[in-house]
Amino acid sequence: MPLKNTNIVSAAQTKFGKLEGVTLREMFAEAVDKATTQAGVPKEDIQAAFIGTFIPEMLVHQGHTAPLLLDYAGMRGLPATRHEAACASGATALRAAIMAIESGLYDTVLVAGAEKMTSVSTNRATEALAAAADDEFESGIGLTFPGVFAIAAVAHMQEYGTTEEDMALVAVKAHKNASTNPLAQFQKEITLEKALTPRYIAWPLKLFDCSPISDGAAALVLTSNEKAKQYTDTPVRIIGTGQASASMNLCDRTVLTSFEASVKASRIAYDMAGLGPKDMDFAVVHDCFTIAEIIATEDLGLFEPGEGARAVREGVTALDGDMPVNPMGGLKAVGHPVGATGVKQAVVVYRELIGEAGPNQVPRHDTAIMHNFGGTGATCVVNIMRRADA
Amino acid sequence: MPLKNTNIVSAAQTKFGKLEGVTLREMFAEAVDKATTQAGVPKEDIQAAFIGTFIPEMLVHQGHTAPLLLDYAGMRGLPATRHEAACASGATALRAAIMAIESGLYDTVLVAGAEKMTSVSTNRATEALAAAADDEFESGIGLTFPGVFAIAAVAHMQEYGTTEEDMALVAVKAHKNASTNPLAQFQKEITLEKALTPRYIAWPLKLFDCSPISDGAAALVLTSNEKAKQYTDTPVRIIGTGQASASMNLCDRTVLTSFEASVKASRIAYDMAGLGPKDMDFAVVHDCFTIAEIIATEDLGLFEPGEGARAVREGVTALDGDMPVNPMGGLKAVGHPVGATGVKQAVVVYRELIGEAGPNQVPRHDTAIMHNFGGTGATCVVNIMRRADA
Repeated sequence: MPLKNTNIVSAAQTKFGKLEGVTLREMFAEAVDKATTQAGVPKEDIQAAFIGTFIPEMLVHQGHTAPLLLDYAGMRGLPATRHEAACASGATALRAAIMAIESGLYDTVLVAGAEKMTSVSTNRATEALAAAADDEFESGIGLTFPGVFAIAAVAHMQEYGTTEEDMALVAVKAHKNASTNPLAQFQKEITLEKALTPRYIAWPLKLFDCSPISDGAAALVLTSNEKAKQYTDTPVRIIGTGQASASMNLCDRTVLTSFEASVKASRIAYDMAGLGPKDMDFAVVHDCFTIAEIIATEDLGLFEPGEGARAVREGVTALDGDMPVNPMGGLKAVGHPVGATGVKQAVVVYRELIGEAGPNQVPRHDTAIMHNFGGTGATCVVNIMRRADA
Repeated sequence: MPLKNTNIVSAAQTKFGKLEGVTLREMFAEAVDKATTQAGVPKEDIQAAFIGTFIPEMLVHQGHTAPLLLDYAGMRGLPATRHEAACASGATALRAAIMAIESGLYDTVLVAGAEKMTSVSTNRATEALAAAADDEFESGIGLTFPGVFAIAAVAHMQEYGTTEEDMALVAVKAHKNASTNPLAQFQKEITLEKALTPRYIAWPLKLFDCSPISDGAAALVLTSNEKAKQYTDTPVRIIGTGQASASMNLCDRTVLTSFEASVKASRIAYDMAGLGPKDMDFAVVHDCFTIAEIIATEDLGLFEPGEGARAVREGVTALDGDMPVNPMGGLKAVGHPVGATGVKQAVVVYRELIGEAGPNQVPRHDTAIMHNFGGTGATCVVNIMRRADA
């Protein structure tokens, strides 16, 4: 049965990028202020907070981030918990908030995510990110994330004939969409030739196949049906939610061209919503690397296995295509401040669904799917959202 | 209104202590196995997992612990999220599980917590623990937790005349209770004279005022009323739950002799349960330092402000007193593997309520309160539990 009582009534993000001189708590407070006070939702109405941060312990020597960040955002005292599932931290916070509202314990809650990543060296950030992989089998012996996704890319190339150019086309699309997104880290289009520049990070992945290291924060307000009308005429319902996990390390997987947790989580979410891939108007997926977007669109059933690359080549996933994917520019070009990402994806879905995505507006916008995953897909969260009046 | 549908049907912990050669994942798997297979709850019945770990990033270079630990415990694939709120991590995981069941999304879920702390030096562990305090105002300038609680102790001494001997008596009681708890880190009674040995950690706190650095794990199975009877004749209902936060740093507090988040969280939990302090048969509170136990018993309303020390002196909080506190030995003597602690507290409440606490059984055991807090009380979770047949 579809979820019955969970609505997004406001959503905001900070600019993503290298935000010099802006601390984790400051970014967080900015995103929350935009999603509450500036959106007409008084902070006093918020009853609890669900917060995603991935690894502030290693990036800014700060644990216990939930009460600290909430205090900085002017809401000291509320119940506040930090949720962590690597790059899916934001969406696990969102899911906890969904259950909080569906349980009846709270009517109106805050979901927020943030990460400050550029305060340390790129090497240190890479080491911190590697904590999302299995320390005994992968990260501890030097396998960091570009390497892990390079393995998936090679498997996909071998199995389905996907090419480096196909992956580069994902980057070109991401940069094109982000070029009209003032909150994106990269607001410049790139040519296919540039995307193919052979600056290999981990063959076959090149510089433009990788999402950047970013700072940023995002926030949402969720509320019950009864309260939603106080805040907006266009609430967005979360009608299906699914989460699944898989082995942390790739060596325990039987298939490398698909992430089983994405498949499982999406089937749970579709079943709950009573909808299928053909009912989706657009998709926001976890494109930490270009190959991850191609695989995600297949795992969500939007395209058949092995057909994801063709969809990119034929423009199906472009902003004006039949199934726009990452219409604001994705992790790849908007940036990937890890704890913020899953929340920011919901911000994008919300803005597109209510028709306020400006030059990045997709043509059909009743129903959409969002897909956030952590590590090499050891955690995956999928939500299906629909405009309440659709 | 009391929570209506959440039951604990099994509960277990590993031995706490310096568990040499046992890794985080191994401890976790042991606790989960004891709370599932060995307790007659098939792992196949579990639908989701809510996991508390505080700072494995700094202790064992491992983030994204939820799917990893769950996989090791033989439950790969399920939705699994890590919840972190410093020393209250375990209880925030428990609360997320409560909301998951009350929402109707799941019937039967696992709650587990674990921490491996002795694999690093004591200095490194102290640095990691300090991430629970505000890096800009406290930990970053050298104020670690013994210092923070020493400040609270001094305030309590000054305001209420509490003495070093009163605090030492808390330690004596903890060690006495733990002496018959085979899973405790310290299973030896200590004399008052020994507890008063002037090995100061941060005046007025001495060695025996401080909980130890520990390894350990704990696990619970929660289920709905309908399913509970499949597993046990004596389910324990969670009838009230409250969580609150406060400023991270002490300099923003107006009172140092009480932790406002404990007061708030307990009032919410009492209101939800429709009960008050006088209805509690015993209490399990967060005694990371002896002064913390004294303050907690006052904050929960079990004793008037300033009367907590007298209750200890007069034996009211002893195992055979009128209000037994930490009947199995508390964090102080059983150990404090941070992420496990809040879950272990619920394990203790469960065992006492169902009358299976052996030599540590409290006389009256219908209803109890548990109190888990993080940092210097920036997060507090309080749950009220009752035997279903009480």
